[in-house]
Parts: sequence; structure tokens; C-alpha cells
Amino acid sequence: MERHFDEELEVIRRKLVEMGGLAEQLIGRSIQILVSRDNTLSEEVWPAEQIVNQKQIEIDEGCLELLARHQPMATDLRFLVSTLRITGELERIADQAVNITEAALVLIVRPEVKPLIDIPRMATLASGMVKDSLDAFVRKDTRLARAVLTRDDQVDGYKNQIFRELLTYMLSDPKTIERAIELILISRHLERIADHATNVAEDAIYYVEGRDVRHHAGEAAAPSGESRPF
Amino acid sequence: MERHFDEELEVIRRKLVEMGGLAEQLIGRSIQILVSRDNTLSEEVWPAEQIVNQKQIEIDEGCLELLARHQPMATDLRFLVSTLRITGELERIADQAVNITEAALVLIVRPEVKPLIDIPRMATLASGMVKDSLDAFVRKDTRLARAVLTRDDQVDGYKNQIFRELLTYMLSDPKTIERAIELILISRHLERIADHATNVAEDAIYYVEGRDVRHHAGEAAAPSGESRPF
Repeated sequence: MERHFDEELEVIRRKLVEMGGLAEQLIGRSIQILVSRDNTLSEEVWPAEQIVNQKQIEIDEGCLELLARHQPMATDLRFLVSTLRITGELERIADQAVNITEAALVLIVRPEVKPLIDIPRMATLASGMVKDSLDAFVRKDTRLARAVLTRDDQVDGYKNQIFRELLTYMLSDPKTIERAIELILISRHLERIADHATNVAEDAIYYVEGRDVRHHAGEAAAPSGESRPF
Repeated sequence: MERHFDEELEVIRRKLVEMGGLAEQLIGRSIQILVSRDNTLSEEVWPAEQIVNQKQIEIDEGCLELLARHQPMATDLRFLVSTLRITGELERIADQAVNITEAALVLIVRPEVKPLIDIPRMATLASGMVKDSLDAFVRKDTRLARAVLTRDDQVDGYKNQIFRELLTYMLSDPKTIERAIELILISRHLERIADHATNVAEDAIYYVEGRDVRHHAGEAAAPSGESRPF
């Protein structure tokens, strides 16, 4: 019985990694459409997002079944509860990739406002945060999780830089306004992806240490190394 | 023992309602700052957001304790798992209200781009969705939950209307660009609040019916009235 439960947890973990891989691919693909200006690349986006959605439902059902049938405690309970949260984050990340794709499709039929430099870099940063936060969770690597949390400042830096630069373009040539706003919104979608990755990293820490580090609750709640009773 | 467990569920339910009320108030307050141009109203926003964050941690801990100690099944399990999701939605709603407040504080020290009409209306719509979705959850009212889901089109309508109108202003007077973008971003924050309310409404349906209606999974998964085993 115990063995069986562990195997079921392993199945969930594997599915979660697959789901994360798909979400990451979607981010890359959405930016690739924008950069390459090749709209045929968008065909796979919607079917891929559907698969992410299905995976969420499948994984969530698996978690709920294990919660109901095995009534796990401590680490296993935290694993299942965290997984239920993380599927939600990954699903939203895929949604954001769809939003980026939609904006990209509007943009690529019109002249470029400017060569894209910071947006692809910001996308690489956000996508790396998604990968590392999920790796941190499945490998129980809290050091990696904490490294993800520190990248928030870089995300903010890109966001502000992109905004300022595009504002200059809009002011000097009002014909660019609509396209520049789409680019600003893309940077905001990337910011949200990074936010979701941060949430996953916080879940990784919670899972391993039993501490809630959201809103820095951990700092006040427990000295390092102390874990919660459940 | 049974009695005690029910009482603990009731405590969680009551705390969740309080947390939702605070999140709603934050939305109202953030828009009030924008409309009244009174920055003194912003003083309460950050402390209130802190309280929302604390409530999330407190409620989540309560849910996890009940999951670990009582190993609930069926409806009670769904209630606790849904509550863990809903606190996340409410916390993000409060975050969005803070984002709106920050944008409002930038805007109110500069001349008005135009009289605000659609943004306050969109805020009332989004705030009503938050209230109704949480009411639907605590009262197990799936009809109300489904009514929330149908309001998505109105949200989209406002978003597009606000974008088009502000674009006109920017094109005719580039000096308005920065302020107009802030207003567009505020409308996007309101859209996200409505998204979160939609997620809460979907959780309400899941809790009552045991069906996952996200991504219309319910349509394919189960004929009406049929519930899942857990």
C-alpha cells in the first residue's frame, strides 16, 4: 500500500514536470512569433494551451484522489496541496503565453516600432524562472527556489526600461502608439509569468521546509530550520 | 469530535468572508482615490493589504491543519481545497487594488485626461463579481456562481471601449500618452480582478457539484447532476 502511494505521487510529479515543460515551450513560442514575424508558428499555440488545461484538470484530480483515499500527513500533504497550487500557476502562465501570441499576431502584420532587444531578454528571464522554480519544487532544492525569488528586481528593471523606451517612440511619432502599447502589454504579460514563477518558488520552499514564505511570513513565524507540525 | 470539526469549518468560512470583504473594500478604495483625487485615502491601502496577506496565511494554515488532523472526505475535502485556492485569488485581488492605487497616485497629481466614466463602472462590475462569487461559495449557490461567469463579456466590453477611447486621446494629443497608458493599465488590473472572481465562481461550482468547470471540463466530463466520488 505504502509503495503504491509513493508511486502515485511519482506519477503526479512526472505529470507536473511535463505540464511545466509545455508552459515553458509556450512562452518561447509566443516570443518566437513576435521576433521571427512568422504567423504559421502560432498554429500550435492553441492546441498546446488546451493540453496544459487538460493536464491541470488531470493532475488536480489525481491530487484530490490521493488526498481523499490516503489522507496523507506532513510532507506528502504539503506536496499535494502545493501541487494543486502550482498547476494553477502553470495554467495561468500558459494563458499569458496565449495573450502574448495574440498581441504578437497583431504586431507582425505592421511595421516594426523598433528592433526587439529587451522583450526577448525579459522572456528568457521569465521562462528561466518558470523552469527553475519547478525544478526547485521537484528536486526539493530550496536554494534554487530562493535564487528565483531574487530575480524579481531584474524583471522590474526590464519592465521599466521597456516602458521608458517605448514612451520615447510614442512621443516622437504618434503613429507608433498602438503598436508600442501592445509591446508594453507584452512586457506586462511577461511580468505576470515571472510573478507566477515566484509563487511556484514559494510553494517549493513551503513544501520542503513547511514554512509559508509568502509575504515574508516565514521571517516572523519560525526561526530557520523549524518546521510546522503538518 | 464531529461537532468540533464543523465548528472549525465555520470559523474558516467566516474568516474567508472577512478576507473577501477586505479585498472588495480595497478595490473600492483604489478607485475612490482615482476619482476623488484625494491622496490621503491611500494611507489605509497598504495596511489593509497586509491584513489580507495575514488572513491568507491564517486561513491556509487552518485548512491544512484540518486536512491533516481530520482527513475529511467528499464535500468537506472540496471545501478545504477550494478555500486554499480562493484565498490565493483574494490575495491577488488585493494586489491588483494596490497596483490601481499606485497608478492612481501617479495620475492624480497631473491634469485629468478626461472625465472618468467607464473605469468606475468597470470597477463596480469587477467588485460585484468578487462579492457574488464569494457569496456563491459560502452559500453554495451555483446559480449565482454561473451568473458571475456570464459577466466576462461585459468586462471585455469595458476593456475594449476604454482602450479605444484613450487611444483617440493619445493620437490627438501626445501629451496625454503617459497618463492614458496608466488608465489603460488600470483597466487591465480590473480585468484581472474579474478573472480572479471567475476563478472563485468556478471553485464554488466545484465545491457544490464536485465538478471541475474550468476550461469547460464539466461539459465533457460528467452529465449534469453527476458528482465525482471525492
